[in-house]
Amino acid sequence: MAELRHDLLRQRWVIISDKRGKRPSDFKKVSSQNRDEFDSGPCAFCPGHENENGHEIYAVRDGDEDDAPDWHLRVIENKYPAVSPSFDELLPSGEGTVYGACRLAGFGSHEVIVETPSHHLSLPELPSSHVAEVLKAYQARINHFQNDSRFKFCQVYKNRGNRAGASMSHSHSQLIALPVVSHNIQAELRGAQEYYDKHDKQCILCDVVRHETQVNRIRLIDENEHFITLSPYAPMFPYETWLVPKNHSSNFETVGEAEILSMAEMLKLTLRKLDVAFGYPPYNYTLQTAPLGKEHLNSAHFHWYLDILPHLSSPGGFELGSGCYINPIVPEEAAKFLRNIEVQ
Amino acid sequence: MAELRHDLLRQRWVIISDKRGKRPSDFKKVSSQNRDEFDSGPCAFCPGHENENGHEIYAVRDGDEDDAPDWHLRVIENKYPAVSPSFDELLPSGEGTVYGACRLAGFGSHEVIVETPSHHLSLPELPSSHVAEVLKAYQARINHFQNDSRFKFCQVYKNRGNRAGASMSHSHSQLIALPVVSHNIQAELRGAQEYYDKHDKQCILCDVVRHETQVNRIRLIDENEHFITLSPYAPMFPYETWLVPKNHSSNFETVGEAEILSMAEMLKLTLRKLDVAFGYPPYNYTLQTAPLGKEHLNSAHFHWYLDILPHLSSPGGFELGSGCYINPIVPEEAAKFLRNIEVQ
Ligand SMILES: Nc1ncnc2c1ncn2[C@@H]1O[C@H](COP(=O)(O)OP(=O)(O)O[C@H]2O[C@H](CO)[C@@H](O)[C@H](O)[C@H]2O)[C@@H](O)[C@H]1O
Ligand SMILES: Nc1ncnc2c1ncn2[C@@H]1O[C@H](COP(=O)(O)OP(=O)(O)O[C@H]2O[C@H](CO)[C@@H](O)[C@H](O)[C@H]2O)[C@@H](O)[C@H]1O
Repeated sequence: MAELRHDLLRQRWVIISDKRGKRPSDFKKVSSQNRDEFDSGPCAFCPGHENENGHEIYAVRDGDEDDAPDWHLRVIENKYPAVSPSFDELLPSGEGTVYGACRLAGFGSHEVIVETPSHHLSLPELPSSHVAEVLKAYQARINHFQNDSRFKFCQVYKNRGNRAGASMSHSHSQLIALPVVSHNIQAELRGAQEYYDKHDKQCILCDVVRHETQVNRIRLIDENEHFITLSPYAPMFPYETWLVPKNHSSNFETVGEAEILSMAEMLKLTLRKLDVAFGYPPYNYTLQTAPLGKEHLNSAHFHWYLDILPHLSSPGGFELGSGCYINPIVPEEAAKFLRNIEVQ
Repeated sequence: MAELRHDLLRQRWVIISDKRGKRPSDFKKVSSQNRDEFDSGPCAFCPGHENENGHEIYAVRDGDEDDAPDWHLRVIENKYPAVSPSFDELLPSGEGTVYGACRLAGFGSHEVIVETPSHHLSLPELPSSHVAEVLKAYQARINHFQNDSRFKFCQVYKNRGNRAGASMSHSHSQLIALPVVSHNIQAELRGAQEYYDKHDKQCILCDVVRHETQVNRIRLIDENEHFITLSPYAPMFPYETWLVPKNHSSNFETVGEAEILSMAEMLKLTLRKLDVAFGYPPYNYTLQTAPLGKEHLNSAHFHWYLDILPHLSSPGGFELGSGCYINPIVPEEAAKFLRNIEVQ
């Protein structure tokens, strides 16, 4: 089977081709993708190393002394940030005319969420209540930026494993807040708006949730009280999985306590399934939520979701040049496979 | 230094941050990125294995018998194609309403350009005249699709090394022709048009060429009669390099013999520099040329270029979620570094 599928939300084509999965490789397998590549620690994110870190911004701990090693979770400034909170760094341009107006100082906030003091546990190995604390830390930080009008956009993401970009193996995620909205989220807002306008004021992801739970469960993976996981219709990566709230919500940071616990359980289950199925694979997840600012709060057409992307293969020149991904795994089959993975 | 730069052509933000380059990594170096990972052959792309391959579409050879092993270069059908030239593969949808109109049969052409019979030589190790034959093969194939109105878009690309996605190590490139235009090229067409409209009918890349050769050579790497190479203003990848024709041209496939030889020399030089500088690194290149069809021929605002992307690091969740890349190497410094690499 070969198909071109258009993602109405992300506004991009994906090529689904199950013939691709059978192609040979003559490269020696140099990259073991399992737990062995992880360093044995301790590292700068371990308790007792607080003074090697960027400044602490947020923490869940037993006592109430900053930088004390009795924490369960810490948000710290990234010590090697992509952007920085000081405004005065931009040198005079001297660029001439071509790129005159195309630069901004690298203003923003780049933070690391150290998810656990334990160097050896990965996120889904923590109790659900602890995973919920991680999600609440994301919420607290996004809410912080909601109150600072200099920020327009905040991307929360996780890199797990070297092939997924990670440089640190201690379980962590990151957040970058910027004064500009990314073009991916802009495209998603446009896609959601177009669907809404064309379909009698229906939200696209509400329709997807309804479809996958009531009409045809063909891409549904799991379901609990407040969330579903599914293989998206046009996934970029093999076994890509979306974690979607059942009730309409545009802003992840406004989600209540009960939903967050339900989400933590679903996230834990999903990541455990990937570990069981693919032997601790590298992956990313990215939180696709509305941009910052009142004008995006409680949007009727945009619906937030968490996009989980295992790295079982590397994209190549076709993806970089065209922006279209080739996916050798049919998502309906990926869903069936992941639905049936047993985790204890 | 940290900066946000907007690419006017590609319409995306890039974060340039030289602080990032200094961050530590606690992963064991599992992936050697050098020539050792390449298989010693022979493989299916070697002479004498023609019968293991997809159908031959184009070749440069001494004799004139198809599939004979006396070839210097062959274009063959990809045996495990992402898309296929037969139309009848799409099953009835049964998708319900949400994705009703979002799929096409996986129609298209997926071809492999086997660049040399030698399993051990990489593209820049071939004589310039041979590299020119490879470029002419690209032209011949694009011209073929120009004459078939079912095709709207053709992406030529190269994957070198496993981290850049390659599954075969024998030197090759690929081409995928599709019935839809990729959203990356659509964005570039829009970006070029906007610049043209705002700047008194100037082409953006003509302005860049003029700027880099006459005003301020700060991002210029090399220059010959018909081409320049430069570090783009807002590169996604460290040491990303654009190979740009000096004279305005929207369609790579219409470029004349003299220019192609000049391009071959420039491409060879650029890829040799990467090998010398980074020890045979993985990389991709992608040909960004106008979509197929008369309406895009000889466009005044779009200017084709070859985008060369070394893979010295792996993008992570931030790039996947936002579409914005973080680049730890300032392009003006990358250009200076590459300008000064000596190749014999
Ligand atoms: N002592 C300390 N205190 C505070 N912070 C510390 C620290 N030591 C290290 N850090 C920071 O911790 C972070 C660890 O992050 P990851 O391992 O998820 O990937 P990284 O950000 O390196 O880059 C990956 O993700 C980004 C974004 O997706 C991609 O650009 C990149 O190519 C990819 O490798 C780094 O950003 C590092 O700067
Ligand atoms: N005997 C034979 N005859 C004809 N063709 C043969 C053949 N044996 C193998 N092939 C084909 O040769 C091609 C070799 O291509 P590459 O090594 O450049 O990367 P590949 O296409 O595998 O995937 C990379 O590039 C694509 C596109 O960028 C990404 O989707 C993907 O993730 C990445 O690994 C494969 O497409 C394969 O199907």
